[in-house]
Amino acid sequence: MRKIAILGIGQTKIDEHWDLSLREIGGNAAFAAMQDAGMDKVDALFVGNMLSPLIDGQNQLGTFFSDWIGLWKREAVKVEAACASGAAAFRAGLIAVASSDVESALVVGVEKMTDKAGHDVTAALATAADADYEVEQGISFVGINALVMRRYMYEFGWKHEDFAPFSINAHANAVHNPYARLHEKITVEKFEKSSMVATPINLLDASPIGDGAAAAIIVPAERVASVSGRPRITVAGSASATDSIAVHSRKDPLFLAAAYESSKRAYEIAGLRPQDIDVFELHDAFSIMSALSLEACGFAERGQGVRLGLENKIAPTGSIPVCTRGGLKARGHPVGATGMYQIVEVVQQLRGECDKTQVDGATIGMAQNIGGSGATILTHILQAD
Amino acid sequence: MRKIAILGIGQTKIDEHWDLSLREIGGNAAFAAMQDAGMDKVDALFVGNMLSPLIDGQNQLGTFFSDWIGLWKREAVKVEAACASGAAAFRAGLIAVASSDVESALVVGVEKMTDKAGHDVTAALATAADADYEVEQGISFVGINALVMRRYMYEFGWKHEDFAPFSINAHANAVHNPYARLHEKITVEKFEKSSMVATPINLLDASPIGDGAAAAIIVPAERVASVSGRPRITVAGSASATDSIAVHSRKDPLFLAAAYESSKRAYEIAGLRPQDIDVFELHDAFSIMSALSLEACGFAERGQGVRLGLENKIAPTGSIPVCTRGGLKARGHPVGATGMYQIVEVVQQLRGECDKTQVDGATIGMAQNIGGSGATILTHILQAD
Repeated sequence: MRKIAILGIGQTKIDEHWDLSLREIGGNAAFAAMQDAGMDKVDALFVGNMLSPLIDGQNQLGTFFSDWIGLWKREAVKVEAACASGAAAFRAGLIAVASSDVESALVVGVEKMTDKAGHDVTAALATAADADYEVEQGISFVGINALVMRRYMYEFGWKHEDFAPFSINAHANAVHNPYARLHEKITVEKFEKSSMVATPINLLDASPIGDGAAAAIIVPAERVASVSGRPRITVAGSASATDSIAVHSRKDPLFLAAAYESSKRAYEIAGLRPQDIDVFELHDAFSIMSALSLEACGFAERGQGVRLGLENKIAPTGSIPVCTRGGLKARGHPVGATGMYQIVEVVQQLRGECDKTQVDGATIGMAQNIGGSGATILTHILQAD
Repeated sequence: MRKIAILGIGQTKIDEHWDLSLREIGGNAAFAAMQDAGMDKVDALFVGNMLSPLIDGQNQLGTFFSDWIGLWKREAVKVEAACASGAAAFRAGLIAVASSDVESALVVGVEKMTDKAGHDVTAALATAADADYEVEQGISFVGINALVMRRYMYEFGWKHEDFAPFSINAHANAVHNPYARLHEKITVEKFEKSSMVATPINLLDASPIGDGAAAAIIVPAERVASVSGRPRITVAGSASATDSIAVHSRKDPLFLAAAYESSKRAYEIAGLRPQDIDVFELHDAFSIMSALSLEACGFAERGQGVRLGLENKIAPTGSIPVCTRGGLKARGHPVGATGMYQIVEVVQQLRGECDKTQVDGATIGMAQNIGGSGATILTHILQAD
């Protein structure tokens, strides 16, 4: 496989875009990435999306967007892995370019979720869980995560407020990200007093849904010199791993085995260790997931992930900055698009474009995207030359 | 890219499998392919499926099946391109192995459609069309194809009964395929008298839906010697192309530009011409599509595809045998699985396993899978050493 580089990125603000259609949202991010890359054609299109059949009545999003973007005749396909659809599409595009089958690919993660009522979205999100053995029992997706969080608190002796730093950090960083859905700082008091969703997960433990799209153009690394003074961003490691789809089938429901496995492989491919990572865009769909990701990826001991928040090591100035653009918690979580937002944000960090939340001298960044309750996990490590 | 070989195949009978769950149907085809290949582990799983979010309430089918099949920790993903999901998953798996990123892949096309009422399935199938500009007008998927068929009849002067040979051939061949949904020969009289669905498409122009799965194991070709006397089956050409998603956006709605484009590229990659193809598993979702595919792929002049049927050139003994196992029309069309049934059936032909519908001396076979009304089209050419 040849090495690949990310030549251009684009994204839309995450919001309730009732004035924009699904094609406009995805198209806007795609056009932005093409403009950023200085390209108006690519060989292939890979679209990451989870919910458009259920919420927008539209399948076949690959061709839906190749048509809209003007990539006539070109190859196009949709990739779906629940909330990990964005990174899964990125990995599919990466492999296509790395294989030499195509010379360039556009990857778009896109989701339009707010046209339906909340209970419809909750039902749609539950399709990420096991329909036969979880959803059939009446549990929602947040309910599953709530069971995991409660067990974690019980096993390792943490209180609910110990998770506050994850949300506080995410909200503080999102203030400086114009593409973020939420631009509001929060405090421990506010965190503790927010409304309950599924005990112990309250509103400020949980990421908001939204409409949005993020995109990237990938090409063989050898084709890329430094573009107008920007560093060249290459993919140093890419790996995907799976676990059981139902949480109850796991020997240890408090360990993200697929995060461990995919990060281990990505580290190996890149020849790097956890301590080499300058910035980590993790999948904080719920605050508990931040702790579990940090533990599985080698940044904390089992049961000690929350300590990194309490010791303020996750801030942009900390030893392992996470959610530097707001994370899922405050940038927002348009599910099938999230993985591509993470990739785009790591590129922004490695380019040094993050202003007040810029991680000083960041040259190596990691993005981790989770589908279901830890069922499908993809890890990508990007590097600036 | 390295050359890849198909080491094992598996399929289930297409039927109303009310006694089997989605995971059992897909699992049965996967286990059969693994047994056929003599492998109990693969590096990666690619699942082609279109409707499971809408009909089965289940997303994330990659991990759903890696979990069920026992491919713990391995990479898994779902690929969707409407009715071309099966071939799109095959192509994704092929590229992954060809890229050297993985050493083996299992591809499963699966669909469970008959648990819902007919109108729900009709609505779900319409998500293959353009939700904003086609479905919003109230047209169904069969309705779109009916407009195309009527226009073709008008432009080129064919009568409805001229399409009968496509359905008659498919039904005649399916009688000898134990995995086919329909095992009933039909006549021109029966064809002409069958109930109308969307004029001029009647019941015997249209393929039946169904529950089913088909699977294949792919590995690098250099790893495969002749397995127990069977020929080695390699992929000589693979290509995917797109057209506008809405039929009305095309300059010429009677020409499958994406079939032309993807078959042209597949021929080029394989170094072959249409006359080299011994057997062609085409996408006869409706009889009109058989004619259009044959024309776009170089087997007939524009408007003359039906003539190949009338001259009996499409039978297993003809110059361009199609639907030798029953095609979509009589083997059945479990939409996201169909592309993998086609691949499996071409392998069966190249192995010489087709008994009464065996094409004598077949060494080169082509499979073409269509998503939407010609919007996404993948062409694969397989070759027996």
